[in-house]
Amino acid sequence: MDIALTSIGVIHSPFTDPADAPIRSSRSTVVGSVEVFSQFAEGLRDLEKFSHIFLLYLIQCSQGYKLHVKPFLDDQEHGIFATRYPCRPNSIGLSIGHLLSVEGNRLDIEGIDMLDNTSLLDIKPYIPEFDIRENVQIGWYSRRANH
Amino acid sequence: MDIALTSIGVIHSPFTDPADAPIRSSRSTVVGSVEVFSQFAEGLRDLEKFSHIFLLYLIQCSQGYKLHVKPFLDDQEHGIFATRYPCRPNSIGLSIGHLLSVEGNRLDIEGIDMLDNTSLLDIKPYIPEFDIRENVQIGWYSRRANH
Repeated sequence: MDIALTSIGVIHSPFTDPADAPIRSSRSTVVGSVEVFSQFAEGLRDLEKFSHIFLLYLIQCSQGYKLHVKPFLDDQEHGIFATRYPCRPNSIGLSIGHLLSVEGNRLDIEGIDMLDNTSLLDIKPYIPEFDIRENVQIGWYSRRANH
Repeated sequence: MDIALTSIGVIHSPFTDPADAPIRSSRSTVVGSVEVFSQFAEGLRDLEKFSHIFLLYLIQCSQGYKLHVKPFLDDQEHGIFATRYPCRPNSIGLSIGHLLSVEGNRLDIEGIDMLDNTSLLDIKPYIPEFDIRENVQIGWYSRRANH
């Protein structure tokens, strides 16, 4: 089944080379901006009162995907779905940004980890009651945590 | 720009009517299963050691979307991107499931909030270091929290 989506905006970032982009947006203090296309701008009403937002976007992958990958943070191969590796069967990126300001159809965001000119698919407010889980087991990543 | 994605699996859930599905997967103890299509099953390797996973899926919206919506948890209208309302310009759903088991290409998951036969787009491991933010402001939702 093919599923057709449409870009609702574009992400402006200082990164033009994947090698320069941070691996974890949670550790990025880089500021970028999101330009929501004008026909969607009304959908931003009241967003400015949220401090953190999920950005869903289309990851730029010039190569295809593999089902086994060696993630940036490990030296072992794992199944793609057990990693956050960018090139995936559907390369939808998920990052949490710190929303600094909203002016018209432009959002300034800290914690940018995607490439310049990335196509934006969706914005959702980050709500701890929905999005924070405790007692989490993190598999292979536990060997890498805090490194 | 049209973006073509493909379904990588299907979510089996007890819910066939949107009115029955829980609003917050974080409060759902409903168990369902994810069937990853066999051609993607190798991508699940090592996933079983993670306790929580993001599911990205295509929300079933028979109607279109509006840019201003009244969310289930409020009596005021807000911009669609300031809500988690399901019908959106790109209706990509994002839920965090508690992964109970992986057997072959089948995942058993607690915290199901999507409808039966939902098309799966991606699975990503939930990693607190990436995905937990503190000092979060939640705008209009703060009036509704803990209600």
